[in-house]
Amino acid sequence: MSRRVYLAGPDVFLPGFGAEIFAHKKRLCTARGFEGVSPMDNELETSGIEPFEHGLAIYRANVELMRTCDAVIANMTPFRGVSMDTGTAFEMGFMLAAGKPVLGYTNVVENFYDRSQRYYAANAHAALDSYSAHTSIERFDMADNLMMVGAVEACGFKVVRTAVPPGRELEDVTGFKACLDQLARHWNE
Amino acid sequence: MSRRVYLAGPDVFLPGFGAEIFAHKKRLCTARGFEGVSPMDNELETSGIEPFEHGLAIYRANVELMRTCDAVIANMTPFRGVSMDTGTAFEMGFMLAAGKPVLGYTNVVENFYDRSQRYYAANAHAALDSYSAHTSIERFDMADNLMMVGAVEACGFKVVRTAVPPGRELEDVTGFKACLDQLARHWNE
Repeated sequence: MSRRVYLAGPDVFLPGFGAEIFAHKKRLCTARGFEGVSPMDNELETSGIEPFEHGLAIYRANVELMRTCDAVIANMTPFRGVSMDTGTAFEMGFMLAAGKPVLGYTNVVENFYDRSQRYYAANAHAALDSYSAHTSIERFDMADNLMMVGAVEACGFKVVRTAVPPGRELEDVTGFKACLDQLARHWNE
Repeated sequence: MSRRVYLAGPDVFLPGFGAEIFAHKKRLCTARGFEGVSPMDNELETSGIEPFEHGLAIYRANVELMRTCDAVIANMTPFRGVSMDTGTAFEMGFMLAAGKPVLGYTNVVENFYDRSQRYYAANAHAALDSYSAHTSIERFDMADNLMMVGAVEACGFKVVRTAVPPGRELEDVTGFKACLDQLARHWNE
């Protein structure tokens, strides 16, 4: 049976729930002899249930899917703020504690520190968290918060940082392919 | 031996690495018969090492601390974007997979959906992720992304949402105390 790779990322928020990019990523997995598993692979019966319960049903389905997977490749591209998507960060922590390889890529090459500086310089925090203006910014020459970068490194991998054409930051899969390369080497060792 | 509660949150980015708020939270834990454990409780030897390696050392120390803890109470207050701090989200996922109770509080009562709408309306995304403008926003009547809210609910708890005085969003511990109440009931059952 093929090894299963959980496809984590804000890809689910792209038009059509990211169907196109997930199909692409799955083809790339198949070409390696792996099976790509998308959070959208669930069949959920949600008609007539309240939004909050709907959200919980998706949560439960995602956790069950992760338990069936052997690794995670996370799209760590910044999303709605300085950092990557928080649901994806959660999933990286989950898979790390489950003892499974954690990999990730980002299509924004700017450092976490520089993005944070820019967030405050542009006054973007005024819209959401003006109360954070006096906080310190970690400066570790990393792509994102040290927990996620640390997890990838602790698993023996590197966060893949790729400069992509403007507007393609959420869709480009160059970094995803490089993660598959790392994972294939890891599993063939 | 007292049960150990990991104090996750962006509190570490407050002045003095959050020493004041961590001391306060620890006293509240002690009053319950628990032991509060802060990410700052590590003694790290970091003189002369590169920033990236320094970040990895903190990561390793935090993971080791989490392994010694019996539960996590996360400060889920939005931080540098629509969502909560990503390192904290990672830690919630880690503790969930480790089979430990996951609790959380936020000092911003506005829904995730409404915050996201406001992020785009205020053009705040222009500073960091203009490429996300065409993405869909989940609408599940939740405080944050469904993975973290789902984790808290799956553990049998509720995310505590508290309206606090402006400017006190990162420091107020009313919600933290309510989480301790939930955890005490859980452990006494």
